[in-house]
Amino acid sequence: MSEWSKDDVITMAHGSGGRAMQQLLDTLFLPLFSNPALDEREDQARLPLSVFNQHGDRLAFTTDSYVIDPIFFPGGDIGKLAVCGTANDLAVSGAQPKYLSCGFILEEGLPLADLEKIVRSMAATARAANIQIVTGDTKVVQRGAADKIFINTAGIGAIPNDIHWGTSEIQPGDKLIVSGTLGDHGATILNLREQLGLEAELTSDCAVLAPLIAPLRNIPGVRALRDATRGGVTAIMHEFANASGCGIDVIEQLLPVKSAVRGICELLGLEPLNFANEGKLVIAVAPEAEQAVLDSLHLHPLGVDAATIGVVTEGKQVRLTGMYGTSRLLDLPHSEPLPRIC
Amino acid sequence: MSEWSKDDVITMAHGSGGRAMQQLLDTLFLPLFSNPALDEREDQARLPLSVFNQHGDRLAFTTDSYVIDPIFFPGGDIGKLAVCGTANDLAVSGAQPKYLSCGFILEEGLPLADLEKIVRSMAATARAANIQIVTGDTKVVQRGAADKIFINTAGIGAIPNDIHWGTSEIQPGDKLIVSGTLGDHGATILNLREQLGLEAELTSDCAVLAPLIAPLRNIPGVRALRDATRGGVTAIMHEFANASGCGIDVIEQLLPVKSAVRGICELLGLEPLNFANEGKLVIAVAPEAEQAVLDSLHLHPLGVDAATIGVVTEGKQVRLTGMYGTSRLLDLPHSEPLPRIC
Repeated sequence: MSEWSKDDVITMAHGSGGRAMQQLLDTLFLPLFSNPALDEREDQARLPLSVFNQHGDRLAFTTDSYVIDPIFFPGGDIGKLAVCGTANDLAVSGAQPKYLSCGFILEEGLPLADLEKIVRSMAATARAANIQIVTGDTKVVQRGAADKIFINTAGIGAIPNDIHWGTSEIQPGDKLIVSGTLGDHGATILNLREQLGLEAELTSDCAVLAPLIAPLRNIPGVRALRDATRGGVTAIMHEFANASGCGIDVIEQLLPVKSAVRGICELLGLEPLNFANEGKLVIAVAPEAEQAVLDSLHLHPLGVDAATIGVVTEGKQVRLTGMYGTSRLLDLPHSEPLPRIC
Repeated sequence: MSEWSKDDVITMAHGSGGRAMQQLLDTLFLPLFSNPALDEREDQARLPLSVFNQHGDRLAFTTDSYVIDPIFFPGGDIGKLAVCGTANDLAVSGAQPKYLSCGFILEEGLPLADLEKIVRSMAATARAANIQIVTGDTKVVQRGAADKIFINTAGIGAIPNDIHWGTSEIQPGDKLIVSGTLGDHGATILNLREQLGLEAELTSDCAVLAPLIAPLRNIPGVRALRDATRGGVTAIMHEFANASGCGIDVIEQLLPVKSAVRGICELLGLEPLNFANEGKLVIAVAPEAEQAVLDSLHLHPLGVDAATIGVVTEGKQVRLTGMYGTSRLLDLPHSEPLPRIC
């Protein structure tokens, strides 16, 4: 590994059931992802159910495909994103993410050096989060039938017996907390694509949030968590509102937004609440839990900018109160400012 | 649903976190796949661990991405394939497939009528096999950045306590059984792509094999099962040989091959053992289990053509003995005759 020339690229043979594919498994995926279940090399990982039973009474199971463009960006790459995104979708249920599957769709011609960089990034991100990548699949399609690389990950973990976080728990009077600055990932990708020239100040927030979430399990009054990715915080607020039958009022002045992100938004007339994040929680909590949740978040480097941004209301609308006290409906956009953000 | 005009196509907005995506979920995926876990509409399915504990002590977990071209073919479509293929990768461990995730990557411009046909096919195949599709994701990429539709499925199920099928169990003297005719899927796709004009006689064997496998759990002496997809039976024989340190001798005359498939192979100089199947088992069994396994397979419509095709040997080679008694090495091909076969 690591000695690729620029002529070493993915060929159609790497996606066959033949020797070329076997070599790719033996030299790249299996050594980098190595763990007991994967190393058995069966068609499926075989995981002891006792591991899950120790941790809870329900299995959390989720999936996402990642098609982000560009595949490398400040703060991460498509591989790191594919581990973080799915781990976070497990963690927001209260589960400890344990195992991931990964399915690669590779375009013929993808440099092997790029693939290795992505696979190393997945392996490092998973290892740091104590997650094992236990089963996988690789397909190759002809040049032009896909764009470089798409990755799907599915994940499983156990939800502790006493945790029942969910959008149906949300009640009027609950506070809405975000775990940090909004829109960093979306602004970073937009800046790259549109060459706005703000490189130094913008980094994706792509991170596994499980360590930030774990202490929240001990705080009574946590109602529901989501990670605000595609569609941003606005999409989550609409999910919360729809599922609970409540409304949400947020205060523009309370939104934590980095100045570089705010600059891009003002430049382009965009709303940071609609921008994608890849390492930010939206949390609905009972009023009496608000301070404990904020204190817990502030203790972790990923949560230093955590802030209450609004409140759950009796009405069914999602509203934003602006700098001058005027309030307006925050509609769920028909589409997003940016395709292929994740 | 079902009233699409040809102008109703997937747009970039369907892949955003916004309203268009919500509508696609509400009108297509959620009603067709409906089940308790999916209907909760959380970011992850929440499945009672008691369901798995009832059935076994290990969790089987697997994934595959499906990129087949064309997406509709005699005997199936990419959706049916995405359910069957992953269900089969679970079932060959002895597990009962229970839950699937699905991740769609859609090309802008895909007709909604095609998507609905595929989703209906997935729903019907899963329902017939008593499998629930409990979590999912949809991404859309620009025209030309993917080819129509790619689907990833990941699956989970419990492996019964007393089942320990695996390639490391294989021993010299074991018999090699296939559950039916070889190469039907590969020949069907080749015929379509190359327009060989044999339409009437060729159909993919795409099927969920769990009902064929279930009775084998009661037969002592079953060593290892695989479904022979990409790379065909040849790839499986090499996996069996590598994992067990044994060799395999197969007899050409014993191979069950339909005459239309044999015709295509002779026409193009191809080997049916290398052709993909999507509903065929390769089973290594102790000699004393051979008859019981064949009898069990023959009782099921999917196993009527089951046959012993060879034997596990002390040597490390995979060999084919031909019509006239001459024996030759059966190499693992470098690549496959057909890209995007599954």
